[in-house]
Amino acid sequence: MTGALGMAVALLAAGAQPAAQRGDAGTCLPCHEEKTPGAVAVWRASAHARAQVPVGCADCHGDAARNHAPFPAGSRVRVDAAVCGKCHAKATAEHAASAHGKGLRAGRGCTRHQASSGPECALCHEAGSARLRIDSECARFLTQSPAMQRQGCNACHDVERRCDTCHGAHRTAAAAAGDPLTCATCHMGPDHPQYEMWKTSRHGALHAVGGAGSGPDCATCHMPGGTHDVSRGVSMGLAGQPFPPERRDRERERMLDVCARCHARGFAARQLADGDAVQKEAKTLVDEGAAIVKRLDALGLLDPAPSSRPPHPLSGQRLELGPQMLYEDLSRAEAIFFRMKKYHYVTAYKGVFHQNPDYAHWYGNAALKLALSELKSEAALLGKLKLLEERLGEGAARAGPAAEDPLRRELRELRERRLRGEIDPAALERRQRELLERAGGGEGAPPPAPAR
Amino acid sequence: MTGALGMAVALLAAGAQPAAQRGDAGTCLPCHEEKTPGAVAVWRASAHARAQVPVGCADCHGDAARNHAPFPAGSRVRVDAAVCGKCHAKATAEHAASAHGKGLRAGRGCTRHQASSGPECALCHEAGSARLRIDSECARFLTQSPAMQRQGCNACHDVERRCDTCHGAHRTAAAAAGDPLTCATCHMGPDHPQYEMWKTSRHGALHAVGGAGSGPDCATCHMPGGTHDVSRGVSMGLAGQPFPPERRDRERERMLDVCARCHARGFAARQLADGDAVQKEAKTLVDEGAAIVKRLDALGLLDPAPSSRPPHPLSGQRLELGPQMLYEDLSRAEAIFFRMKKYHYVTAYKGVFHQNPDYAHWYGNAALKLALSELKSEAALLGKLKLLEERLGEGAARAGPAAEDPLRRELRELRERRLRGEIDPAALERRQRELLERAGGGEGAPPPAPAR
Amino acid sequence: MTGALGMAVALLAAGAQPAAQRGDAGTCLPCHEEKTPGAVAVWRASAHARAQVPVGCADCHGDAARNHAPFPAGSRVRVDAAVCGKCHAKATAEHAASAHGKGLRAGRGCTRHQASSGPECALCHEAGSARLRIDSECARFLTQSPAMQRQGCNACHDVERRCDTCHGAHRTAAAAAGDPLTCATCHMGPDHPQYEMWKTSRHGALHAVGGAGSGPDCATCHMPGGTHDVSRGVSMGLAGQPFPPERRDRERERMLDVCARCHARGFAARQLADGDAVQKEAKTLVDEGAAIVKRLDALGLLDPAPSSRPPHPLSGQRLELGPQMLYEDLSRAEAIFFRMKKYHYVTAYKGVFHQNPDYAHWYGNAALKLALSELKSEAALLGKLKLLEERLGEGAARAGPAAEDPLRRELRELRERRLRGEIDPAALERRQRELLERAGGGEGAPPPAPAR
Repeated sequence: MTGALGMAVALLAAGAQPAAQRGDAGTCLPCHEEKTPGAVAVWRASAHARAQVPVGCADCHGDAARNHAPFPAGSRVRVDAAVCGKCHAKATAEHAASAHGKGLRAGRGCTRHQASSGPECALCHEAGSARLRIDSECARFLTQSPAMQRQGCNACHDVERRCDTCHGAHRTAAAAAGDPLTCATCHMGPDHPQYEMWKTSRHGALHAVGGAGSGPDCATCHMPGGTHDVSRGVSMGLAGQPFPPERRDRERERMLDVCARCHARGFAARQLADGDAVQKEAKTLVDEGAAIVKRLDALGLLDPAPSSRPPHPLSGQRLELGPQMLYEDLSRAEAIFFRMKKYHYVTAYKGVFHQNPDYAHWYGNAALKLALSELKSEAALLGKLKLLEERLGEGAARAGPAAEDPLRRELRELRERRLRGEIDPAALERRQRELLERAGGGEGAPPPAPAR
Repeated sequence: MTGALGMAVALLAAGAQPAAQRGDAGTCLPCHEEKTPGAVAVWRASAHARAQVPVGCADCHGDAARNHAPFPAGSRVRVDAAVCGKCHAKATAEHAASAHGKGLRAGRGCTRHQASSGPECALCHEAGSARLRIDSECARFLTQSPAMQRQGCNACHDVERRCDTCHGAHRTAAAAAGDPLTCATCHMGPDHPQYEMWKTSRHGALHAVGGAGSGPDCATCHMPGGTHDVSRGVSMGLAGQPFPPERRDRERERMLDVCARCHARGFAARQLADGDAVQKEAKTLVDEGAAIVKRLDALGLLDPAPSSRPPHPLSGQRLELGPQMLYEDLSRAEAIFFRMKKYHYVTAYKGVFHQNPDYAHWYGNAALKLALSELKSEAALLGKLKLLEERLGEGAARAGPAAEDPLRRELRELRERRLRGEIDPAALERRQRELLERAGGGEGAPPPAPAR
Repeated sequence: MTGALGMAVALLAAGAQPAAQRGDAGTCLPCHEEKTPGAVAVWRASAHARAQVPVGCADCHGDAARNHAPFPAGSRVRVDAAVCGKCHAKATAEHAASAHGKGLRAGRGCTRHQASSGPECALCHEAGSARLRIDSECARFLTQSPAMQRQGCNACHDVERRCDTCHGAHRTAAAAAGDPLTCATCHMGPDHPQYEMWKTSRHGALHAVGGAGSGPDCATCHMPGGTHDVSRGVSMGLAGQPFPPERRDRERERMLDVCARCHARGFAARQLADGDAVQKEAKTLVDEGAAIVKRLDALGLLDPAPSSRPPHPLSGQRLELGPQMLYEDLSRAEAIFFRMKKYHYVTAYKGVFHQNPDYAHWYGNAALKLALSELKSEAALLGKLKLLEERLGEGAARAGPAAEDPLRRELRELRERRLRGEIDPAALERRQRELLERAGGGEGAPPPAPAR
């Protein structure tokens, strides 16, 4: 079947004109040369087209190509990893076993779920079923448009079912798929700047000067021997979670096998052990930050409080600082903590594992410590303010119940609502006037001057 | 004329020695080979020098070269775009019609003026005239040195009259002028990281691996067919301002013509529509931020208040959050808002238009939402502090006019001035002593302990 | 000796089998081909191996190689610059005379010490001796692991004694050592992004398009003629400290000699003078920030106060804003100031010296001014809070000593300690109960409601 279709395409490509018939790939190109010339050109240059038995349209696109029907407007003609797996079984299996295959879109990466019951399950599964809901995505946690979900989240977090995330839709060539810049399209930015730290490391410098033979790139260390199990040799979880000792040791040895191709194994082992130590050191700072935020929450000092913000899909109205922590509707203290945990912490230890002192130290360690200082100052400030409020409340209480008459209290509460932005200036003025008129003080006057 | 001069230069370059005469370009090189060897070498390698009829010194430098006079010390021998336009009419006209030609130095880009009368006009025009003032520059808005204006602002914001911004002074070659890194010298950084987002996008990755034929660069999409109208295909204003529908639709179709060289037009249209949606979504967050800052200003909670800072050249002592917003002498709330609007907002939607999920999401969307959380917390804090001040004021008032004697009030006010940094410790001590001596309490004692 | 050893290695490399004897380099390779194949391969490709008289293992590693003993586990087999200097005398002397040779690891760079007596000396020297302590390192100032010191600090700050910082351990080739990405491994990041600013400058763009002949790279300007004195032509200290006029002028002329290879000297002089002006301008903003932090400290408004944090190794419990300023255990005001001084200030003027308007302006000047606004707002906020505390204290005092009974005061102080995080909720509850029981109010009740 593949052969027959491919033959037809090859004949067509060679200029021959077989009788085009419905379901024959030869029917695709005449139209698609015009409609999607780039896709056709890229396919023609690919190993798929140049194979002795070419891999043609319907081999991947199946009935969609065979039935020759126009795709519904807005549909995305994605070829699932399962289709690629029919031919590329080993690579697909390795990919599925790696972090890349772990259902990042379905929330199994992003939320790292470990629950076996409860509301967490319902986010991804039909009730009482192991089947994934078709629309389950981490991205739904945040208040954002489908456009941002597609462009900002799922451009990367659909890698478990899309080989074209790295290989491109028709290109497939390993040269492009394995280039560090292809990895960079996802593995960059404040939350895991692996590309940036590699690029300006000694490994990256040697690679730039002498090519892959001279300095290692992403694939050299993370896809040794061409494996698609990119988690091979990674000895901790995505955010530094410890692995069971035997798994950790096994993966470490695997990575050292790679290092030892160029370095003394003992030297490499000490370098990686430094990465472990920095991960633990940085984690301590993050934990210190988390304790501060939790204390602020327990004291009711977060504003907005978790109880007064849109409910978190898993934690409801409770503070969430774990893997499911979101970056919206936070207090400033939480925003500072979010950057510590999600950006600086990860950068500190991954900077060591990628041999980049500037990322380990300045973008990691120094950023963590500066943020922790800011978090402590914020907590101190909120604490002082709270004390003042409490002491003032006591002072008012000590001064006796007669100290504040009902009109004054209502006016003050109105003013407080305005300061919190709950009412606008017009509403403030209208209600002040109502209160004053009711009290006989009328004519929209400002709050009365404090009188004895 | 061009021919005659060029001939002289060519002869000279070939080693012949025509009789040098004043006004002949041949008189320039002997001296400039020594004084500006780089410029001469670059010119020699340029298309100008290698043309059949070479383009020589006076062809561009005119009388300055012909009169053979040394340039006054400190003068910048710039060749204006109008000079280039004598030969390169089409490119110059396209350039003038694009955003690059819109008077960025004169404030028409930076401040995007739309006024037809009032103080805004006087910033760039002589009174009652349509002529631009020679010294009009956006940069004058800020308190900064001429050196920073030259190096920080006008290195980019003089592109409307300087072709050498991209082409270099004598180099001219399209290969260098059109390289993405040439675009990067201006189109990078926190306010519009187009180079960074392209470089680490799939387009950038393919370009790095296979060259311009494999992945598009800046010019592929923004200068299709070699046009110098870089605004071609851009369907909204520099900061996302909506264009009239017909202009928006026309430019979108132009961009889709470029996309369709490689992609299915429908796919490309959906991608760009996602960019539109993210722009609107991000704008909503910016607008929410602006509303908070405006409320703080209305409540007198910005510190410094617009009324107590150096007047804004257009808005005077009023809050300015529009295109003319500056980044100096702000309150923290405004500083947070400035980054939201000027950095994160633009990054979010341009990240989508340049196919970079990390910029769209982490540097754009997440940065916007974290900053908004911080802005809300800042506003809540300032509101609480204000309430405390008001309640304390009422409390003091309730305690009666006798509660604070004049000496104590003067000492308190002195202390407040010190806390605001208005007087230094020596002045504080001196005035305290004066007060106490006047009151008979003398000897530089600290403020008296609170007494009944 | 070198010749004999080298000969042995060369023979071995050529396949000949001389009688291996203890102390002969030929004894190293058979084993190291297997144990450190990368090192051997890199050495084989190096000029050292390919020299007429090859430079072999013991020539650099000395007794460690000759004695053929396994290195102790965990030892780092570094070859000191002094070893390289035996052959490369000129380069080593130039390196030692430059900022690279100034003892960065020993604190002479990082802390820029100028003391000739006192506690500063003891950080690096044995008591009463000019000899450096073996363990003296700036990194010891910070609370951090030896792993972070190795990976985050000394990966760069050991350049004074390690030629392999740039040349690699066995590679040595100038092509790799002089590539801008090799410089980038240290000269990047928030504290001095020289690589980033050069890469996206016009110099960097021309270099990317046409190679070193077309646009200058790091070595072109900072190592002209192959000198290893990288401080040549640098006319101010590492953080902009002024040099004595004659030194400043001499170095400026040296840099202009480099510029003048391509540019008119007058043009280049004006460009560099702009860098000087921007340095001074930016310094003024930093000084303004320092004055604010000092005022806050004098008023006791920093939290934590220098007196309540771990003592600084040089300044003890006093505020430190100079070159020895650390980035941990700070108040938010100091954290903002740290970034101004260490990141934005340096970026502003180095951005001009490296011809990058985005770094000079957005990452430098704008970042400085936004941070200064934030610092001023923070100071204003702390001042207001302090005023409220003082006024409330006075109000309580005015209300008379009877206003707060001892039990209430103790309960309030307990609550304050909890708000500052000094005790945890369990301790709070336990001590509240103790207090109440002592007072006869018992049973773990919450603090009593304010009563008349």
